[in-house]
Amino acid sequence: MTYDLIIVGGGPAGVSAGIYASRYGLNTLLITKEFGGQLAKKAVAIENYPGFPEISGLDLIKEFEKHLKKYKIETVKDTVRKLEKKDDKFKVMTEKNEFEAGAIIVATGADPRKLEVPGEEEFIGKGVSYCVACDGPLFRDKVVAIIGGGNTGFEAALFMSKIAKKVYILEYNLSPAADKINQDRAAGVPVVKVITNAALEKIEGEKFVNSLTYKDRATGKENNLKIDGVFVEIGTQPATSFAKGLVDFNEVDEIIIDSKTGKTSTPGLFAAGDADDVPYRQVVIAAGEGAKAALSVIKYLQDKSAYDSSV
Amino acid sequence: MTYDLIIVGGGPAGVSAGIYASRYGLNTLLITKEFGGQLAKKAVAIENYPGFPEISGLDLIKEFEKHLKKYKIETVKDTVRKLEKKDDKFKVMTEKNEFEAGAIIVATGADPRKLEVPGEEEFIGKGVSYCVACDGPLFRDKVVAIIGGGNTGFEAALFMSKIAKKVYILEYNLSPAADKINQDRAAGVPVVKVITNAALEKIEGEKFVNSLTYKDRATGKENNLKIDGVFVEIGTQPATSFAKGLVDFNEVDEIIIDSKTGKTSTPGLFAAGDADDVPYRQVVIAAGEGAKAALSVIKYLQDKSAYDSSV
Repeated sequence: MTYDLIIVGGGPAGVSAGIYASRYGLNTLLITKEFGGQLAKKAVAIENYPGFPEISGLDLIKEFEKHLKKYKIETVKDTVRKLEKKDDKFKVMTEKNEFEAGAIIVATGADPRKLEVPGEEEFIGKGVSYCVACDGPLFRDKVVAIIGGGNTGFEAALFMSKIAKKVYILEYNLSPAADKINQDRAAGVPVVKVITNAALEKIEGEKFVNSLTYKDRATGKENNLKIDGVFVEIGTQPATSFAKGLVDFNEVDEIIIDSKTGKTSTPGLFAAGDADDVPYRQVVIAAGEGAKAALSVIKYLQDKSAYDSSV
Repeated sequence: MTYDLIIVGGGPAGVSAGIYASRYGLNTLLITKEFGGQLAKKAVAIENYPGFPEISGLDLIKEFEKHLKKYKIETVKDTVRKLEKKDDKFKVMTEKNEFEAGAIIVATGADPRKLEVPGEEEFIGKGVSYCVACDGPLFRDKVVAIIGGGNTGFEAALFMSKIAKKVYILEYNLSPAADKINQDRAAGVPVVKVITNAALEKIEGEKFVNSLTYKDRATGKENNLKIDGVFVEIGTQPATSFAKGLVDFNEVDEIIIDSKTGKTSTPGLFAAGDADDVPYRQVVIAAGEGAKAALSVIKYLQDKSAYDSSV
């Protein structure tokens, strides 16, 4: 059987798209490994999804899932391996099965790249964070380290410089990769200190992070920094590899969309949330993009059926 | 005194922008006549803001307002009359006062154009609606009339054709203004009936709408249609006139934005929600755009202060 729409991903973008599509009556399948994606893994409270002043990521995604399941929508727990388009139909190959649909919304999100040092996993949500916009305000008047001297690392540091009392940027190489303007900007902010040629070795603490150790790559000397929080800013990896070859990506593997509609370079294929090239990674932004993509799918299927019945 | 940011509008886009800006610590003023805008006027339940399976517009905006007021943000109840930019500062003239800021987010929304016939005001929320995407699913297996034969009217009818058992489109002129493709499409759907040359005279009912009367403009004959709902689709009017001359608009008075960032043609001036040219009018979409605009303001002010301190 052929679905009207298959949504790949069960985070805020996918669930929002699912609410819109199923409410309209599209015969919709949502495929996800688990509901929530990154959101479910966030251990600190979410304070910036309007309407919920403070809620855990897990509780918020439970509310989303409950909302979605009010409507008639099929969901399967599975992982998509490959996406193909033949004529006007999409074929979705998962680990366990194969499905067909007239339209696709890719809402698989992106995974932050991990440091892979001791202490990282242990202190996620206890001082280790992958999102300054989400968690930064929790570190008011504290000392934080940003790991990564690219643009996002420097932007994270500038963001934190108005909140934290001290912000370190740790950069592995001798000179940070960030644009000169970002480096100049940070140089003008007294609370920001850039440490280059620094190889992070471990993150330590008790209940909560309290220090990190890095090696000076020039001298080989180990240094210990007292800090209250670590923000990992070494990039993200959009979970979009299954769509390779089918749609246009930017240089960091994000699917390029028209953010007014969620359209991609491939008719019938839409994207929303962190898998797309909108520069901000926020629950409410992803949910908004999911709604747009679903409304665009409705329009796309209407156009296609008008065309099909006229030929 | 000069604010970092002035947000004009207190609907979902403005409140969401306010949450992001104030949480970051921008010195922010939010100016609005009242919280909620269109949302506060919606009498039927909102069922498509993810996380709230069913909530009245009024209750949802109360949750938004409560969330916003958790943070340090100044709000004034007033109406903006004029916006000007001089050097790098914006001047905001309201009915009662004058304010200055380094950046502006316009989130004033759009008002649906009214029919101005007897019964319209009386039955708002009791069968008269201005939003099929919001309220359409409440009319499953009912009979509805769409007023307006433009593209949005035909699109509303096609949207409703999968939900309602009968959909009339009433068009004032002899031929509808909608694109041929939309008209062809509707012609292929048996439940949609287009009535042209029809001047709507009144909407009637008891507790709820049950009929409407229109005059056939060719014969002068009055006709009564039994219907359960009326969707008004004669366009909207963005509440953006105070920004005229300062920023690029499209032909329907919407502020043209880069929807990935909320940027407009004027540096420092951002827009979000129904005042902008994103084609969908939904609470979650407006809230997402508001968050984007606020994050872009943070970036803009950082860039500006780096530039200011380097000259």
